[in-house]
This record gives sequence, structure tokens and C-alpha cells, in this order.
Amino acid sequence: MPLLVVGSVALDSIETPSEKRENILGGSAVHFSYAASYFAPVRLVGVVGEDWPQEHTQLLQSRNIDTAGLQIVEGGQTFTWRGRYLPNMNDRETLDVQLNVFGEFDPVLPEQYKHCKYVFLANGSPRVQLNVLDQVGGAHLSVADTMDLWIKTERDALNELLKRVDGLVLNDSEAKLLTGDENLVRAGHQVREMGPKFVVIKKGEHGAMFFSQFETYVLPAYPTDRVFDPTGAGDSFAGGMMGYMAEKDDFEPKTLKEAMAYGILVASFQVEDFGLDRMKQVTREDLDQRMEEYKQMLTF
Amino acid sequence: MPLLVVGSVALDSIETPSEKRENILGGSAVHFSYAASYFAPVRLVGVVGEDWPQEHTQLLQSRNIDTAGLQIVEGGQTFTWRGRYLPNMNDRETLDVQLNVFGEFDPVLPEQYKHCKYVFLANGSPRVQLNVLDQVGGAHLSVADTMDLWIKTERDALNELLKRVDGLVLNDSEAKLLTGDENLVRAGHQVREMGPKFVVIKKGEHGAMFFSQFETYVLPAYPTDRVFDPTGAGDSFAGGMMGYMAEKDDFEPKTLKEAMAYGILVASFQVEDFGLDRMKQVTREDLDQRMEEYKQMLTF
Repeated sequence: MPLLVVGSVALDSIETPSEKRENILGGSAVHFSYAASYFAPVRLVGVVGEDWPQEHTQLLQSRNIDTAGLQIVEGGQTFTWRGRYLPNMNDRETLDVQLNVFGEFDPVLPEQYKHCKYVFLANGSPRVQLNVLDQVGGAHLSVADTMDLWIKTERDALNELLKRVDGLVLNDSEAKLLTGDENLVRAGHQVREMGPKFVVIKKGEHGAMFFSQFETYVLPAYPTDRVFDPTGAGDSFAGGMMGYMAEKDDFEPKTLKEAMAYGILVASFQVEDFGLDRMKQVTREDLDQRMEEYKQMLTF
Repeated sequence: MPLLVVGSVALDSIETPSEKRENILGGSAVHFSYAASYFAPVRLVGVVGEDWPQEHTQLLQSRNIDTAGLQIVEGGQTFTWRGRYLPNMNDRETLDVQLNVFGEFDPVLPEQYKHCKYVFLANGSPRVQLNVLDQVGGAHLSVADTMDLWIKTERDALNELLKRVDGLVLNDSEAKLLTGDENLVRAGHQVREMGPKFVVIKKGEHGAMFFSQFETYVLPAYPTDRVFDPTGAGDSFAGGMMGYMAEKDDFEPKTLKEAMAYGILVASFQVEDFGLDRMKQVTREDLDQRMEEYKQMLTF
């Protein structure tokens, strides 16, 4: 089943303790799309400026990612983010952000996108996310991401969004901020009671937790000693998860748990190099082989 | 198989954001012993003062914990620790420590303890831990815990200890401190290369990691919304782990992984109330039932 994603498309400049990269392909919708493309056809909605390298579009298209929804603004500049990771490779500081054309992002879905059964609203203003939901009335499964900025500044719109999406994906510190509860198990269920049928809390190097009315579980991250660039890991996780759900096209608890595991494994590859460099080498067979190792690890 | 533990026996005073307790039974050897007692007979070596309530000894004995090695120093006072947990229930500040008789702890093993096949050297000075190892030449499996203090102040003795024990259990921040590496997968293997055949890194609410020459894996913590007092969780984990190993009395990889899982589950009960209050209610059947839920959680 095709999968729609609406979110940021960016040029990232990244510094780690050992290396740096300038203006590499990034953004939440890009990392999500690439990860999801292992499992299902993807339809991307985003906006870039006239500085956007055409080769990036070609890379996405080569992965069965439909870019008809990628708007190019003449005279505009693409969203840029510059960040530096601390030695723990987990904490980072944002050195510079230029929203550019993304600051005025008002997504208009191509007609052929409006009937996608699976919809992911990548991190963005909840007003924009609601606007997208209004355009895809028929979605069977809508999942949103959010961040601390919206929790602090657009709480009313976020609350409305939570009542309308099927799932919410957010990280551990955001779940604590949203609920005021430091215990992640309680926080996850409290977020769920705000509206979504299920909630996923991302814990970075510690894995991810799942909450529904009937289930609470946690899966660990795949242990890797190769962490070169964590940028996009959360979106990559969400892309792997929803891509697998779209591939299987059912809502069985087993499917959701497998989807979580695929999300974790795609993210474990994502961090192994800068930007999409590692992902460009990874095949579906690599994912499936790591899945076998992962299942083995959790079996005793 | 009987299991020997040498470590602290203490009276703890604990404050959490919601409650406090004064002078409750604690200490690394106590939490370890109680957890291990679900699986194997335990022989405890420690020291207390004349203020030590006899009822604590009776409680331990009621759990098949041999207290012949619990020395009572006339005129001395028991080790006390006072701490306060921050709202995240993970970070804590030590408000007061009185080593008292534990400051002069020079363990002398009762003759009948010296042939224990399984030995746990709870957190303590590596010089004292080496002294114990000298007394139990015939141990088949010796495992030590350590802490930041010894890593910083007794590195030479710690290095010698690492060459002599079969396993080391330490927490994530200690593993990073000991190796200078922020990546836990690399850090775990680096500690292993310092001597132990296996290393276990405790990650608190995020579970635990295992490292041997042949295996690297991580198991998540059991997700619980009841965290009332994390004191002793690490020792409880080690007790559950080694208790199960002593019960099974083999060194198969499967046994070690099951032992890790039991450690995680005993610790998940331990934190559900102050001191040993929750453990006093928990039966082996409760542990086995939670094990079934835990295995189910990790199966997909």
C-alpha cells in the first residue's frame, strides 16, 4: 500500500567529534521516505528552494519515492540545519537554523495523494499537520510526530491533532514534557489517553516503547558500535515502522510489533554513517538478516 | 549450588519526591542475597554494629540465607547511607554516609564458605575483593561489581581484580568512566579485554547488556509504572542473575541469558516499594509469571 509523508526536506551540516559534512541531504520527510521505501511505495510532500540539487530528487525517485508533491519555490532557499553532536553522540546543539521556504510551508496534496491509506505527519506545526489531515479524509492509519517546540507553543492545536490521529511517535523527553510525568510507562499511557489509539516513545540508543489500550512493551535498540551520525534516526525509525505496516496492510498486534522492530533496525543502519550514506548500501536482505539476529538476541 | 556474597550491610534512609523511610534494611550484600535466595542457598559475609536489629538477621535466615559470616562488632555502629532521589527516580544525591564498622571491613570467610562454587564480590574496595578471592581459590565462577570511586582511586587494584574474576557487573556510567568510551557496545568489550570472561552493563530503567567473546546482546527492563525506590536495584539484578546461575549450575549461553532476564525481573519487583518491602511479598511463582510475560513481550 502506498504511504504518504508530509514533512521537512533539508540540507544539513553536521559536526561530530571526529568528522563534519556540509549541505548533505536531510530532513524528516527524506529520512522517513528512504526508510519506508524498503517496504512500500512512498509519496512525499515537502518544499525546497531553487538551490535544491536535482540529484537528490533523482536519488529519492530511484527508491520508488514519488516526488510529485515536492514543491520547488523559485527564488527561494531550502531549509538548512547545522548541528554539532557531543562526544556521547546522543546530545547535540543546534548551531544554526534557516527555515527559508519551509517557514511558509503550506502543503497542498496532489489529487492522486489524497486517498493514501497510510499517512505520516512528520514533525511540524500541528496546524500544518491538521491541514494535511483535512485533505486526506479517507486515511485508514494516520500517525504524527511532534517535538518540544510545539508542546510548548501550540498546545491547543496539538491537543486537537492528538484527538484526530491514530498514532503518535515522540521521544522520551517529549513524552515527559507533554505529560509532566517522569515515568515513561505512565507517560506513554497518558499521551494515549489524549487521543491516539497507540503511542510510540523513542528512546534513542535504548530502543522504543509501545502503548495501546491492550499492550505495553519495550524493544531494545540493536547494539551497534558504529554510531557516526544519529541525525534522522527517529524519522528513519518511523519510516521503517510505517513502511512495514503499509507493506503488511493489517493491524494485527503481531504486525505492529514487527513494525516496531523493523523501525529499530532501519534506524540502527541509519546511524552508521552521515546522512543517507549508509542507507544507500543497505538492501532489504540486510534488514531481514539483521532481523534474524535481533530475534535471536531476544530469544532464550 | 550455594552462592557466596561478600559486601555491605547497611541501614538506609531514603527520600523520594513523595515519601521517606528511616533506617531500613539495605546494603549491597543484603539486596543481592534476598534476590538470589529465590534460586539458591546464599552464604553472606558482611559486618554490622551492635545497633543491628536482630529481626533483620531473622528475616535473612528465613530466606535460606546463611548469616554465619555476618560479623557483629561490639561497640560499633552499622554502616548508614542517606540519599534523596530526584523526580526522575533515576538520579540521586547522597546526603550522608557513615561507614562505621564497614570502613574497617576485613572479611574473614568461615571455613565452610571457602568452597562455594559461586562467588559474588559486591561493590567494595578492590583490595578487599582481592582478599576475598584469595580465600576462595576453588570458586568456579566469581563475579565482581565496582563503582566510580574505585575506578578513580584504586585503579591498580581494580586492574588486578579484573584479571582474576570471571565476570564484572557495572553500570553504564561506570563502564564509560573505566574505558573513556561513550559507546556502550565498545565500552563493554573493552572492559572484557581487561580480563573478565564476560561483562554485564546495567542501564537501570533501560535494561542490561551482556558481552562475551562470542556474544553481544541487550535485554530491556520490564516496563513498570511502579517505581517507588530504586535503591538496591543493581544488587538485586546481580542477585537474581547469579542466583539463577547457581541454581542451574551450568555455563551454557542460554543459561546466562535466562539469568540476565531473571536479574532484570527481580529488580523490576525490587523497585516497587521501599527497601525489601515489595520483595517480602514476591514469590518464585510471581517471578516465573513475570518471566512468561517478559518472554511474550520479546516475541514477535
